[in-house]
Amino acid sequence: MAEPAPAGAAPRLVDLRSDTVTRPTAGMRVAMAEAEVGDDVYGEDPTVNALEAEVAAMFGHEAALFAPTGSMANQIALQVLVPPGYELLCDADAHVVTYEVGAAAAYGGVSSRTWSAVGAAIDPAVVAGMVRPDGYHAVPTRAIAVEQTHNRGGGGVIPLTTLRELRRIADDAGVGLHCDGARIWHAHIADGVPLASYGELFDSLSVCLSKGLGAPVGSLMVGSAEKIERARQIRKRLGGGMRQVGVLAAAGRYALRHHLDRLVEDHARAARLAEALAPFAVVAGDGTVRTNIVPLDLTKCALDAPTLAARARAAGVLVSVLGPRTARLVTHLDLDDAAIDRAVGVLTGIFRR
Amino acid sequence: MAEPAPAGAAPRLVDLRSDTVTRPTAGMRVAMAEAEVGDDVYGEDPTVNALEAEVAAMFGHEAALFAPTGSMANQIALQVLVPPGYELLCDADAHVVTYEVGAAAAYGGVSSRTWSAVGAAIDPAVVAGMVRPDGYHAVPTRAIAVEQTHNRGGGGVIPLTTLRELRRIADDAGVGLHCDGARIWHAHIADGVPLASYGELFDSLSVCLSKGLGAPVGSLMVGSAEKIERARQIRKRLGGGMRQVGVLAAAGRYALRHHLDRLVEDHARAARLAEALAPFAVVAGDGTVRTNIVPLDLTKCALDAPTLAARARAAGVLVSVLGPRTARLVTHLDLDDAAIDRAVGVLTGIFRR
Amino acid sequence: MAEPAPAGAAPRLVDLRSDTVTRPTAGMRVAMAEAEVGDDVYGEDPTVNALEAEVAAMFGHEAALFAPTGSMANQIALQVLVPPGYELLCDADAHVVTYEVGAAAAYGGVSSRTWSAVGAAIDPAVVAGMVRPDGYHAVPTRAIAVEQTHNRGGGGVIPLTTLRELRRIADDAGVGLHCDGARIWHAHIADGVPLASYGELFDSLSVCLSKGLGAPVGSLMVGSAEKIERARQIRKRLGGGMRQVGVLAAAGRYALRHHLDRLVEDHARAARLAEALAPFAVVAGDGTVRTNIVPLDLTKCALDAPTLAARARAAGVLVSVLGPRTARLVTHLDLDDAAIDRAVGVLTGIFRR
Amino acid sequence: MAEPAPAGAAPRLVDLRSDTVTRPTAGMRVAMAEAEVGDDVYGEDPTVNALEAEVAAMFGHEAALFAPTGSMANQIALQVLVPPGYELLCDADAHVVTYEVGAAAAYGGVSSRTWSAVGAAIDPAVVAGMVRPDGYHAVPTRAIAVEQTHNRGGGGVIPLTTLRELRRIADDAGVGLHCDGARIWHAHIADGVPLASYGELFDSLSVCLSKGLGAPVGSLMVGSAEKIERARQIRKRLGGGMRQVGVLAAAGRYALRHHLDRLVEDHARAARLAEALAPFAVVAGDGTVRTNIVPLDLTKCALDAPTLAARARAAGVLVSVLGPRTARLVTHLDLDDAAIDRAVGVLTGIFRR
Repeated sequence: MAEPAPAGAAPRLVDLRSDTVTRPTAGMRVAMAEAEVGDDVYGEDPTVNALEAEVAAMFGHEAALFAPTGSMANQIALQVLVPPGYELLCDADAHVVTYEVGAAAAYGGVSSRTWSAVGAAIDPAVVAGMVRPDGYHAVPTRAIAVEQTHNRGGGGVIPLTTLRELRRIADDAGVGLHCDGARIWHAHIADGVPLASYGELFDSLSVCLSKGLGAPVGSLMVGSAEKIERARQIRKRLGGGMRQVGVLAAAGRYALRHHLDRLVEDHARAARLAEALAPFAVVAGDGTVRTNIVPLDLTKCALDAPTLAARARAAGVLVSVLGPRTARLVTHLDLDDAAIDRAVGVLTGIFRR
Repeated sequence: MAEPAPAGAAPRLVDLRSDTVTRPTAGMRVAMAEAEVGDDVYGEDPTVNALEAEVAAMFGHEAALFAPTGSMANQIALQVLVPPGYELLCDADAHVVTYEVGAAAAYGGVSSRTWSAVGAAIDPAVVAGMVRPDGYHAVPTRAIAVEQTHNRGGGGVIPLTTLRELRRIADDAGVGLHCDGARIWHAHIADGVPLASYGELFDSLSVCLSKGLGAPVGSLMVGSAEKIERARQIRKRLGGGMRQVGVLAAAGRYALRHHLDRLVEDHARAARLAEALAPFAVVAGDGTVRTNIVPLDLTKCALDAPTLAARARAAGVLVSVLGPRTARLVTHLDLDDAAIDRAVGVLTGIFRR
Repeated sequence: MAEPAPAGAAPRLVDLRSDTVTRPTAGMRVAMAEAEVGDDVYGEDPTVNALEAEVAAMFGHEAALFAPTGSMANQIALQVLVPPGYELLCDADAHVVTYEVGAAAAYGGVSSRTWSAVGAAIDPAVVAGMVRPDGYHAVPTRAIAVEQTHNRGGGGVIPLTTLRELRRIADDAGVGLHCDGARIWHAHIADGVPLASYGELFDSLSVCLSKGLGAPVGSLMVGSAEKIERARQIRKRLGGGMRQVGVLAAAGRYALRHHLDRLVEDHARAARLAEALAPFAVVAGDGTVRTNIVPLDLTKCALDAPTLAARARAAGVLVSVLGPRTARLVTHLDLDDAAIDRAVGVLTGIFRR
Repeated sequence: MAEPAPAGAAPRLVDLRSDTVTRPTAGMRVAMAEAEVGDDVYGEDPTVNALEAEVAAMFGHEAALFAPTGSMANQIALQVLVPPGYELLCDADAHVVTYEVGAAAAYGGVSSRTWSAVGAAIDPAVVAGMVRPDGYHAVPTRAIAVEQTHNRGGGGVIPLTTLRELRRIADDAGVGLHCDGARIWHAHIADGVPLASYGELFDSLSVCLSKGLGAPVGSLMVGSAEKIERARQIRKRLGGGMRQVGVLAAAGRYALRHHLDRLVEDHARAARLAEALAPFAVVAGDGTVRTNIVPLDLTKCALDAPTLAARARAAGVLVSVLGPRTARLVTHLDLDDAAIDRAVGVLTGIFRR
């Protein structure tokens, strides 16, 4: 699954592959080194307990649970919401059915049907038409999942009005609504919607500390106390019940205090990248970059995505290949304006050739 | 899961709910009573062996395997084609993700993504766009499934040209192509496509003896000898390894000899029903009924589907409710022209009220 | 999984491999040919409904459910009693963890621990010591399964007193008690214990029509109405929801009326086989054959089990190989005294050589 | 799953519940704060890569993989060794079927049978008798798992001669041999067996950094390069693919350098506890404490385990309750001689009352 490390990865490398690549800052490292810890399997790690309480409160929920990855936080939530043999509805490009190695089906027995990949541009009527209630002999829907912001949808932000319609649909059908909120922080910053306003719309959310926020490791599932109690058992079954994990939770607490508001800078840098590249490649989706992801559609370019990535890498710029003709650039904590300048120079140079 | 038996189900009841309701004919019962049998778990039932060889030959495949239901035949094939944690693509209304109780995910660990429900009107470009090959970190697709004819798609027939394009897509991506052929007999009769021409396009097929063909129980999975050997183990794991099951296979052999060509009558009767009801309810899909299923879209009627079904039942006509505003009529072996006359009278009467 | 059919399987072949090999009698075939049937997925097959009611009543339970095989009946019951990730306790040689292709774990997610294989000679204190209640961080036990009579335990009969102690242990721990009663008929005949006395001790039972009773296909799960309702859904998920399966249920009803009391003959014939072979091979277990199974322990013989089976087959007698030094003979409906005479002659001849 | 934190947990609390409760030392915290890190999902974390290479080399294997918990390391290995529907053999008290929430069955579909709980005192002949090869219709065994040292077996050490016999049995049957080596370090110290001598006997091992070695979080699976490649995919499916996890790996590297040889102190302290308590409670197993676990069998005491634990807690000493009459004391890095003195005083005082 892993890409090889770039040969001769010099300090000046501009890594636009993902916001997962950030390294902890000096301040964050101090916070980790000084963290008070305990055995979290016994519920005794004070730093974990504090982080869980803080994040739950941010979203207006009763409880939260620390997990080693966003994938685990999502999969725990799906297993809580959907029993084996029942149904999840989501976007055909959703992270939960794309990048989590089939865990929902393989481990949770969750049957999934998907609406056509539209990223953040969800049509609630389409979703409503897919929900299957108990009673007509078909597999009953038990949860709908959305992704905020939408990764393969180019960092798009689902409007609050759409989310409210989905909530109504979920309520009418008596099914759960889950938010894969790995980058919900970016939606909050881009749209100015309070986190609690998102929180009240979902039965469960996952949120990530190690993408835009820059912590090294960690996500949380957020939900009711009853759901989090069931989640704790599932986390242990998945092998995610760690011990003195307050060393990681401390990084997360630091990140929430220091790295949330600065996401506006990442958004501005992504917009700058998109503007610079627009003459050469189609910015996928509606062409608007609102958060920290720049999706490139190379269908009409001379270059395919692997070639673009290889040439950029040779010039010290790393980009992600999502498909034969799809690439992705992501801005983050470890990239400043100079790095973006350099990436613009390298990439436009490659396209011009 | 079961509907209650109709109170006072008199012989004159016209049962249009499904072609699964047919009862064995006198000739078929004689064939069953005289069947030579053996222990099929040991591979020693001569009637089962003969049926499996005959059906494999009809589709130009090496081998076939008897199963108690079409659901089991489908699920065995999916487990053969797709390992746990890998992906199946199919129509959002496909039987395999709708009416098989989530077994693909619950028992096979099969992750599924779906294209928007279009019944038989598949756009191969949409399917091609969804296939995920090994190597881009996403869950790799391992199989595409189509349904011929398409049950929730109103008995629609996928054109041979479409199937050939899907075969090419599957070959290009190195993934399997499965046909849920519970009613492939109807496609063969409606389009005049030889069964072997269908067979050569698929890695595996399921075919059903107990729907249009009128046998009481039984389906087969068809495929290569290697796939059928693996299928035999999976069938036993699912609890489908029966003993002197030649008594059922005999009914299937009889049905293939006597009930295949007569499907043309069922198609004509369904067309007659559709014509009679068209003034009152929209025949779903493109409005054309080509096989034995008449799907009714009641969105613009005064009646919802449960009300229609209840009133029809009170008058001795049984129809299926697929959704709040969707009903379905199916013609079959046990319904003659007089029964259809009676159904037309009852149903048009209800709509006229 | 399947053994090849014996070349030139002549009518005089004496098949002692299993009681699953019986062929339906003439009377049974008439019953099947005349069976009134309906669509059992809709709950409308009168013969199935009658069989289910009769069998439930025999065991003093509320309900029963027809299944194509004993393996499916067992696996449905285990899935009803034990949620994924919880525990089943059983004998290390139990059919449910030996001959059902790992279905309990693979499809039900059922974790199993086993007591040392002792066949019918269960020590309740050992079982009690293994049960893990909720609350000590270990995987909680949710069900205990026993097998009556015990197949690999040589057809041994678990005494009623032992079963009562197990019931008390199960009650104390709040866990379910399941009986794999594929051959419970033989225990009933051998020990004279009423079927209802067995029935009252178990939360669920599976019973088989196609082994000792001689029907071609079919088993039932027996339990409370609530459990059978959940079982119906699981049966459909496993692909066991058949249609006009009254043709098989009719054979089962015939078998219950005509073939239950005659099991005493099979027991006598098995005892005769055991007596004749005792000078040559150890009859496994405590050496006593009480029902229709004769287990042979060849550890101290010159012959291994595959060699014995091959030589016997060459002489027209079929026996089962359970392990390198373990063979099994089973008497049944299709074997009369003359067949046993012949088997005795052939087998003692092979041992004498 | 979690126990509540003790009310008023003062610094002088003596925590004998488990060696999982240790807190990172000052030196370890420095190592963590200074760790060089990268994105481990991309294989780019140099500290993780170094740790994996070092641990693989210690056991003479090709590769290793970092995991957040020992449970995950074990479960990954089991999924690598045993396909769904195949069989694992282990001790009835093994951690993998006791404390991992049923994951082997629930997520891996692994069928398990167990030999009677005997801790480290394994009889290889019993294991050999349980192994089922391919070919006799029974569920084939694919792996045998042992636990070194054995947790519920009171920290017992399996002799090297026993392990060599198990290796021969595994080789003869063509099945895998896995070592749950969460505390293999203690066996190495107690018996003086080189880690590589253990390593060469197993197809896979899990080893833990956060129990005896005192790191806050982390375990590794060790095996061949091919197995570790498959393990990497399974780790991601379980949600264990973390990012800049070098901060944890650094703690593990520090622990291997500084905390391995000192385990001899923990063993001496456990022996002292056992000696002091022997007059009051039976030390379970053969009464000999060789590593850092003291198992107490209270069957013949006036006190049950929950009462003992409650009274000890009130006096500032924490012990584990494993069952109604079973308690466990564990020594570790955070307990010095004075702490053991205090525990001896408190516990003997309780027993004397």
